Amino acid sequence: MVRGRISRLSVRDVRFPTSLGGHGADAMHTDPDYSAAYVVIETDAEDGIKGCGITFTLGKGTEVDWSRKGRGAPGDSGRPKRGVGLVGQAGGKACLEVTCGHEILQKGQIGKKEREKQMLAQGYPAYTTSCAWLGYSDDTLKQLCAQALKDGWTRFKVKVGADLQDDMRRCQIIRDMIGPEKTLSLFLQMMDANQRWDVPEAVEWMSKLAKFKPLWIEEPTSPDDILGHATISKALVPLGIGIATGEQCHNRVIFKQLLQAKALQFLQIDSCRLGSVNENLSVLLMAKKFEIPVCPHAGGVGLCELVQHLIIFDYISVSASLENRVCEYVDHLHEHFKYPVMIQRASYMPPKDPGYSTEMKEESVKKHQYPDGEVWKKLLPAQEN
Amino acid sequence: MVRGRISRLSVRDVRFPTSLGGHGADAMHTDPDYSAAYVVIETDAEDGIKGCGITFTLGKGTEVDWSRKGRGAPGDSGRPKRGVGLVGQAGGKACLEVTCGHEILQKGQIGKKEREKQMLAQGYPAYTTSCAWLGYSDDTLKQLCAQALKDGWTRFKVKVGADLQDDMRRCQIIRDMIGPEKTLSLFLQMMDANQRWDVPEAVEWMSKLAKFKPLWIEEPTSPDDILGHATISKALVPLGIGIATGEQCHNRVIFKQLLQAKALQFLQIDSCRLGSVNENLSVLLMAKKFEIPVCPHAGGVGLCELVQHLIIFDYISVSASLENRVCEYVDHLHEHFKYPVMIQRASYMPPKDPGYSTEMKEESVKKHQYPDGEVWKKLLPAQEN
Repeated sequence: MVRGRISRLSVRDVRFPTSLGGHGADAMHTDPDYSAAYVVIETDAEDGIKGCGITFTLGKGTEVDWSRKGRGAPGDSGRPKRGVGLVGQAGGKACLEVTCGHEILQKGQIGKKEREKQMLAQGYPAYTTSCAWLGYSDDTLKQLCAQALKDGWTRFKVKVGADLQDDMRRCQIIRDMIGPEKTLSLFLQMMDANQRWDVPEAVEWMSKLAKFKPLWIEEPTSPDDILGHATISKALVPLGIGIATGEQCHNRVIFKQLLQAKALQFLQIDSCRLGSVNENLSVLLMAKKFEIPVCPHAGGVGLCELVQHLIIFDYISVSASLENRVCEYVDHLHEHFKYPVMIQRASYMPPKDPGYSTEMKEESVKKHQYPDGEVWKKLLPAQEN
Repeated sequence: MVRGRISRLSVRDVRFPTSLGGHGADAMHTDPDYSAAYVVIETDAEDGIKGCGITFTLGKGTEVDWSRKGRGAPGDSGRPKRGVGLVGQAGGKACLEVTCGHEILQKGQIGKKEREKQMLAQGYPAYTTSCAWLGYSDDTLKQLCAQALKDGWTRFKVKVGADLQDDMRRCQIIRDMIGPEKTLSLFLQMMDANQRWDVPEAVEWMSKLAKFKPLWIEEPTSPDDILGHATISKALVPLGIGIATGEQCHNRVIFKQLLQAKALQFLQIDSCRLGSVNENLSVLLMAKKFEIPVCPHAGGVGLCELVQHLIIFDYISVSASLENRVCEYVDHLHEHFKYPVMIQRASYMPPKDPGYSTEMKEESVKKHQYPDGEVWKKLLPAQEN
């Protein structure tokens, strides 16, 4: 038991001006400033124990952000963006409610020690989204891709969905660079449409991009449209393309239906969208039951830091498999965290520091607090001119 | 075109201490204080035109409210309650995007004048939820029911789902008072479980309550569980019980799937949960296409005031039918509105004042502002003792 009482609670609006470099641009968010609501709960306990919570937001930061279009897509207008998904992460004990959970975890004991060793030695396989944001020129794309290959990356995700000709050209560039074959664990290409299409449009567009052999198409349509995903999945799986979704799914009830409806082939949990550790664990167990690989969404602010805990747990104690599994990685904003992720040979190396890796550096928070931090004090007047 | 520019915007947190009387209690919310975020946008236009927007919240008012249980049900923990569903209502033009919309509206022209006259004379049929909140004793229930029958009400909704024996007793009381027959337009009983059950539990519980001949069971399970509703619907329709849901559905994508999956027999739009007038209109058109009656959710703070516009428009211009249709009515908090609903012979009489009936009385807002209004200044210190 934690001793001591809560002595202080602070909530801060931290924003990084990522839009200045075109980082993070996709078919739905053309100029996002990656931001976070950051909460610290301090106690008067002797050991000074505290809890840090973070939630990632896009664009308008921690403001609730309604879109211009009123299309009603989550993350767009129908409900608020992430800015309200905050849950404190201190002392998150897992409460496994799913009926089959106990049995799965029992089975997960077999070979657990070996998998733990394997993770400590090799890490959990990752793919990179950092090379092919929509905001990057072809030259930047090529340069980043070449560098990533040199650094050992073999799996690349490309943002698509704004313009078909652009997509064809960009996917060709990547395919040319990584080689012709889609093999199970190497040199993969994933595509991500960020909810841009309706159902028939998704099928049509992806039929044209099929020749670039993507492993999956991510968020082909509104993430609320479970039955729509099932229809798209039925059309694209015969072409060798799986459906990946989940970063906008707010609870296990949505994931249950996606699994029941055979609407996805890759399940993308998000550490901040789901209600903290417990809800994520329920989804890991369901995915195991349906034998669908979990390939977490990450990036943003702190999502990599958080989700590595969940996916390594998944491998060691739940799925016991790396087949068709890979965790997203985006190479920015880690420098603001006290315990940043460690990537080696394109893999997440298991964190050894205590906690959920949520703590940010005080200096970074101060600098990027909106609108009074040093960074914004400089930027805001400049943007007004 | 509106002339003038926005000169002032105010946002206020208005809360009514409804929990003191047990009003509004259901299987999920045992002591709600009905509350609203209230926004007024003023302009410097010569005619002084202004826009008022309201969103209804439960319990913690306009705070984002995470449940104790972490069950991930919307309106409970998986995503925030209504407190963030705010959309200004000034000058809401309908933008009908649904493909079939034009055709439906064309057909809706036939007989429109007659229906308009009929509405002006008779109003839109309503049912009452005011008699049978879970927080009321049997005596209160009987007394309110008797009074409502005297006032001309013939359709009653009862909250269920907390305790089966209690439900059986309360449903029997109502059935005894309104008579034995379930007929199409008179003396109906609806039941509302407020998401309390899982799927098999809903079927089992309602099989036991079937003998009281409810027209529908509302929110039998998580409102996110479209496929779950389809399963429940398949089991209960043969028993003569329809499924009603929608008050927690945040966009037309969810309603599209509920309709596609045959998951509901009564569709309950909510004027504040959906993104304003446009999103509601899309849903009205889809419901017409699928021939499912719309029976709006209302009550709360201002929901009756707003939704009467939508449902009367639905009858006059879209559905052209009153068959199996009825709009919820809850008899409280109307006195705080400048243009409150007018009920005659258990029907909503069409509002004749300009606008969307969103404007609150300044005096009421001042008094109930949280935490500084007169009402809360008195109540808060008392609650602390």
